[in-house]
Amino acid sequence: MEVCRQVDPPSKLSGMRESALLQHIYQSTSRVDRRVLIGPGDDMGMVQLTGTQLLAAVDQLIDGRHVIVAKTPLSLVGRKAMTRSLSDIAAMAAAPVACLVAATLPPDFGEERANELFDAMRDTARQYGCPLIGGDIAFHKDASYPMVCSVTVLAEPVGPRVITRGGAKIGDTICVTGPMGGSLEPDGLGRHLTFEPRIELAQQIASHYGERLHAMIDISDGLGRDASHIAKMSDVQIRLNASSIPCNPGCDWRRALRDGEDYELCFAVAGELKSQIGGSEIHPVGNVVELPQGGPHVVIKDRDLTIAASDMGWEHRKD
Amino acid sequence: MEVCRQVDPPSKLSGMRESALLQHIYQSTSRVDRRVLIGPGDDMGMVQLTGTQLLAAVDQLIDGRHVIVAKTPLSLVGRKAMTRSLSDIAAMAAAPVACLVAATLPPDFGEERANELFDAMRDTARQYGCPLIGGDIAFHKDASYPMVCSVTVLAEPVGPRVITRGGAKIGDTICVTGPMGGSLEPDGLGRHLTFEPRIELAQQIASHYGERLHAMIDISDGLGRDASHIAKMSDVQIRLNASSIPCNPGCDWRRALRDGEDYELCFAVAGELKSQIGGSEIHPVGNVVELPQGGPHVVIKDRDLTIAASDMGWEHRKD
Repeated sequence: MEVCRQVDPPSKLSGMRESALLQHIYQSTSRVDRRVLIGPGDDMGMVQLTGTQLLAAVDQLIDGRHVIVAKTPLSLVGRKAMTRSLSDIAAMAAAPVACLVAATLPPDFGEERANELFDAMRDTARQYGCPLIGGDIAFHKDASYPMVCSVTVLAEPVGPRVITRGGAKIGDTICVTGPMGGSLEPDGLGRHLTFEPRIELAQQIASHYGERLHAMIDISDGLGRDASHIAKMSDVQIRLNASSIPCNPGCDWRRALRDGEDYELCFAVAGELKSQIGGSEIHPVGNVVELPQGGPHVVIKDRDLTIAASDMGWEHRKD
Repeated sequence: MEVCRQVDPPSKLSGMRESALLQHIYQSTSRVDRRVLIGPGDDMGMVQLTGTQLLAAVDQLIDGRHVIVAKTPLSLVGRKAMTRSLSDIAAMAAAPVACLVAATLPPDFGEERANELFDAMRDTARQYGCPLIGGDIAFHKDASYPMVCSVTVLAEPVGPRVITRGGAKIGDTICVTGPMGGSLEPDGLGRHLTFEPRIELAQQIASHYGERLHAMIDISDGLGRDASHIAKMSDVQIRLNASSIPCNPGCDWRRALRDGEDYELCFAVAGELKSQIGGSEIHPVGNVVELPQGGPHVVIKDRDLTIAASDMGWEHRKD
């Protein structure tokens, strides 16, 4: 389960805290059903089926929130709707199985443009080996209401296990798979529209490290917030080093932690590190320590300063 | 895949024809992936997993379209969001596995009410053995924008096969599992909020008839339109008898065909019929004949009149 990301600058954020809502759902979701192997609260849920395990996740793409439809080619709108859900599959080091899409469109959206949007979602899904097997289309009553797409992805574990957010251990190194920050630039039309979900790389990382790979997440809300998801689920503290954070051009570590929408992987691994996996550079950015009583789940050390960083990232808040 | 249903009277319908859009998706969805056993276009898609088969479907519930949130207890809004997707599992005679929910809410929806909505979805799902394993929450920018919920349900086949919309054969009898019409009354607050998805009954029907059960659908868009889905997928004509249609109080056969939102089952079966299955009365309402060249997929015989009925049901159209 993901909290909603936001393309607005923080000053414009509105609405209640979504993670409080998600916490309610996590806590009250009973796992009395023995088939539920991973309940809400990780990148994907997992259920035991006859003879196999299935992972599933859903994400939404909302006009004006995650993308500005009027300014963005529809092929990229559809692509992003799909890739942000596919990125959840990467975060579990799993393999795509199939997807379903639902869209509510303004009544004047136009048939041709609706087709273009769905074609982009389906073609993107196919490119990642995740065929579209179902969907739903509806129209708003009012042309001013925004497009809402939801994409559900289904996946299977690769090998004996999936990599959850929980499981990071004291002494682990925290790594990321690429530079961060500035994904929405220029003007909301940046890399968040064109990133590659790290599905293959995640499988290579899981295969290379085996049991030493303890936890993983995709960086959608910003490294600060996403690292804190790992730390909270693992009951540890993550200490990041500001000087080690790989940053995109024009971004400092604060932007790298805060901007979000990078869709790189962040993982916790024990023992010796490899600097490259599958042609991608792996950047160690911090380490896992014991959680101090009442201490923040993520801190970042910038020269002499140690700064609480769990909340650096995107979330809607009350103004 | 479902076309969007509509709580407005037909005179207010607006928007393009959604089934044209769905047709585009069905036709262009290549089934090159051998794992895809049922692609878009049936009540659920189906994929082959390692050692088992998985069914999946997604449906949306939109404020002002399928429910009027301001007039409806939130417990029933959440319940309907879930039951209309669970009804797709019934339509395949499958067994629930798990579900995922996504919701976009107005920014002033309120945390307590959001919790209430999700509690209702989760509790309804649990009641039908379909645990919630994931979800997403986001907020609209503007308080005037409507709630959009999407619910994805996952299911497994019961026994050797699932019952699709295709497969009805000439000579089959068309049956329904209960009376139809008037589900939205009174004033949008009727049975569409409280119906029971026919999951157990569908399995009993499949178990009783075995190979003789050829096709099945849940009646969401109205018997006229839903019977035509069976007829089109089976390349046959369905002839309904007006006097055999079980109607809810205050409804004639035209309402039974048109109103929609009944969520009873409609199925095609060969050979001897049973009048009751699992305590539910089974109503034979028509039969399957050869499709005349260019003929309508569904006709209804009312005394001396034979009326094309494929399009009797809910769909958004251009005004």
